[in-house]
Amino acid sequence: MAKINEEIFKNVISHAKEYGFVFQSSEIYDGLSAVYDYGQLGAELKNNIKTYWWKAMVQMHENIVGLDSAIFMHPKVWKASGHVDGFNDPMIDNKDSKKRYRADQLLEDKIAAYEAEGEKLKAESLQTEMDNALKAEDLPRLKELIEEHKIVCPFSKTANWTDVRQFNLMFATQFGAMAEGSEEVYLRPETAQGIFVNFLNVQKSGRMKIPFGIAQIGKAFRNEVIARQFIMRMREFEQMEMQFFVRPGTEMEWYNKWKETRLKWHLALGTNPEKYKFHDHAKLAHYANAAVDIEFEFPFGFKEVEGIHSRTDFDLSQHQEFSGKKMQYFDPEVDEETGKPYGNYIPYVIETSIGLDRFFLVTLINSFEEQDLSTEDKQDSRSVLKLHPALAPYKAAILPLTKKDGLPEKAREIMDQLKLDFNMAYDEKDSIGKRYRRQDAIGTPFCITVDYDTLTDNSVTIRHRDSMTQERVAIQDLQKIIGDLVSWKNLLS
Amino acid sequence: MAKINEEIFKNVISHAKEYGFVFQSSEIYDGLSAVYDYGQLGAELKNNIKTYWWKAMVQMHENIVGLDSAIFMHPKVWKASGHVDGFNDPMIDNKDSKKRYRADQLLEDKIAAYEAEGEKLKAESLQTEMDNALKAEDLPRLKELIEEHKIVCPFSKTANWTDVRQFNLMFATQFGAMAEGSEEVYLRPETAQGIFVNFLNVQKSGRMKIPFGIAQIGKAFRNEVIARQFIMRMREFEQMEMQFFVRPGTEMEWYNKWKETRLKWHLALGTNPEKYKFHDHAKLAHYANAAVDIEFEFPFGFKEVEGIHSRTDFDLSQHQEFSGKKMQYFDPEVDEETGKPYGNYIPYVIETSIGLDRFFLVTLINSFEEQDLSTEDKQDSRSVLKLHPALAPYKAAILPLTKKDGLPEKAREIMDQLKLDFNMAYDEKDSIGKRYRRQDAIGTPFCITVDYDTLTDNSVTIRHRDSMTQERVAIQDLQKIIGDLVSWKNLLS
Repeated sequence: MAKINEEIFKNVISHAKEYGFVFQSSEIYDGLSAVYDYGQLGAELKNNIKTYWWKAMVQMHENIVGLDSAIFMHPKVWKASGHVDGFNDPMIDNKDSKKRYRADQLLEDKIAAYEAEGEKLKAESLQTEMDNALKAEDLPRLKELIEEHKIVCPFSKTANWTDVRQFNLMFATQFGAMAEGSEEVYLRPETAQGIFVNFLNVQKSGRMKIPFGIAQIGKAFRNEVIARQFIMRMREFEQMEMQFFVRPGTEMEWYNKWKETRLKWHLALGTNPEKYKFHDHAKLAHYANAAVDIEFEFPFGFKEVEGIHSRTDFDLSQHQEFSGKKMQYFDPEVDEETGKPYGNYIPYVIETSIGLDRFFLVTLINSFEEQDLSTEDKQDSRSVLKLHPALAPYKAAILPLTKKDGLPEKAREIMDQLKLDFNMAYDEKDSIGKRYRRQDAIGTPFCITVDYDTLTDNSVTIRHRDSMTQERVAIQDLQKIIGDLVSWKNLLS
Repeated sequence: MAKINEEIFKNVISHAKEYGFVFQSSEIYDGLSAVYDYGQLGAELKNNIKTYWWKAMVQMHENIVGLDSAIFMHPKVWKASGHVDGFNDPMIDNKDSKKRYRADQLLEDKIAAYEAEGEKLKAESLQTEMDNALKAEDLPRLKELIEEHKIVCPFSKTANWTDVRQFNLMFATQFGAMAEGSEEVYLRPETAQGIFVNFLNVQKSGRMKIPFGIAQIGKAFRNEVIARQFIMRMREFEQMEMQFFVRPGTEMEWYNKWKETRLKWHLALGTNPEKYKFHDHAKLAHYANAAVDIEFEFPFGFKEVEGIHSRTDFDLSQHQEFSGKKMQYFDPEVDEETGKPYGNYIPYVIETSIGLDRFFLVTLINSFEEQDLSTEDKQDSRSVLKLHPALAPYKAAILPLTKKDGLPEKAREIMDQLKLDFNMAYDEKDSIGKRYRRQDAIGTPFCITVDYDTLTDNSVTIRHRDSMTQERVAIQDLQKIIGDLVSWKNLLS
């Protein structure tokens, strides 16, 4: 990526660490590769993102309900879904270093090297050959390409390669403790299957009528070999998925509706629309008859944040076959053409699937600004997170001007009222200017300063994060002022 | 347990399934042992419980912040915590059936059998001998007891036993794909260690001063051999834990404070205080200098729902030793006795740890009532979930009296306003009486009926779930009436 973008990305990552948004997992043990922890502010921001998604999808839609299915599922689920047989990466080992690589990644690196050397033709031709081999799942051809292009292991510097083999991306563990051999179960690689296997449970117990949706937020796990770019691609990650069940033949209408609805959700946060684009899948997965990514312009280019997929009846049909249980819905509505009810069928499914961690990163990148505030007289700057007020970890900070003369007591009195409604920060350390900067850096939309006048006139100064303007307001109006600006309604209506 | 209690418990479980609170995991594949999914209403109730805990612990306490650490942690974490070496169950295999059992469970069953037969002395003496053997981790003695008491395998009916061996309760999986042997990592068996390893990250980036706490909600996993009683003991479960870091020597004061604070949290929901009791641990874990359980009276007796533990500096000291990183805090406050700052020390820790799933079960059991509403003229009854309004999945249901004459349109108009603030249900199917019953059964505190008068006077009937009383109110007052009753403030203030 371009130098300047690399710099921006680096700054976001270090800002996230410095202020308690994201830490490397098990950092005191030198970290665990491709796993991250959310710190005190990251946990709040992540919760707020979840709430925004849940309210927009479940609370606002009469025909969408939630679900919270377990990470552990019956092993047959992953047979039915195709993950046991098909969820693989092509891997190759170097016999000298004993290191293992993703074959396509070695080739990608070579293509990048050709490009850097100005060998545009070589790069293009290798790209085409690799794409063809991957499409055909032609593993011997992948090995040939690695050998033809004289790719060596970065450690041993040799081209002493094994054959290319498929490596499953699911994590497996042993379940139970039966002496005669315990059962192998997987950590789910996606949350969607939890929705599919519960389709009839939810439909019947909730008396749902098609079209209807089931929404779920939860962890998923993939044993990524190449995991990089901070929280973009992790081994443990969180998905927010909604499966929308529709009558066969109506799926394209719903696919288009959900494309639009989901993009609106992103843009409601005030993001520049030019930062987003749709990317249609050129090659469709075996279960899909239409698929599009909502891409965001990261510092390292446009990348997928969310996918909208028309999954047909593939998953439900597979589960019907593998479980032997009917996965049909009875549709009492009358078909105007035939004059008869639509009757029994396996519904088609439109899926919206967003990576929570990726979207968290979008939010950070999108809101992080380093502003030069210098005037003729004075050098000055600030880092600010221009988070949407509804997403901000703290809704307001209470700052007594000094640590004495009853100001902290008055400040805490105000805090005690407001904290029933809002997550509040309190800070009395350092100069008021430094405290403003600190709240800017963590995205707090309002600073409320308690000064000597407050003690007599029961009013305070509110400072707005983005404009840095200040106004004097009565203490009794604070709840409404803050409440109006941080309200979820601003995002939902 | 007593027949009547068994009946109540069975009814709660079937109610939970029927109305979409809890489903067996992967049910269409005949389930996965000791794993459950939360259905559409269970997901809402569980989210509301989480919110209640998070608000009470984090939002209301200036000195407590959140965290969201990963399930995967560096393997050394579990060496340091003692889980690799010490987190075991004593297991024994029957050589004929090849079935494996928990040795202590076999003995417990025998004790119960003695009691059922009126053999009180035998039961007591076996209990004592077993407790001693477990305490001393004397595995051969456990086997002797099994043989002495002629315990047989329920399948083979033989006493052909192997030796008793320790079986680790952590789930392991393989991380990465290095050819030279991938790394074994565990699914965390508790969330607490994620807090300990991040102690300094949070303290420094959040400028926290002792005493302060870090709170976390998250999944944990234990390969329970004997998993039973519905969602009481699962292989995948969720914890809500808070670690409170204090100056050594002050821990008992904080231990007592948190005991009290946490019990208050439970009772704020309106639960009969007689349903709760404290149970002091007779035998302390190696890391604790005080420990108490908050027990709830389940239909099968008083059982732990939450634990409050004074963990000393055990965990932080262990991590300091195993990671080689200092886990100390610098305390600038001046000790009045010595006149010097307290300086560097490893803090002591008070932990509050509540099982989310167990508390979910408490909530169901506690709120479920089957009421006889018969009068002289008519047999009648209802099932009602008397959930605290703040926890109820739906805050109100909108019910048009009939499906025609513009009533559904008017009803949806009201719904569209209220759904911005509350999770709302809409129902127009069946008689109004049946719809009331259905909302009672899922714990909706208010039913709002839209009738013909509504079209002219813009008022509706509100029916209260618990009292079943009705009142006529103006549509414009609905938001405030519902808002006041479902507000979190009622639980927090």
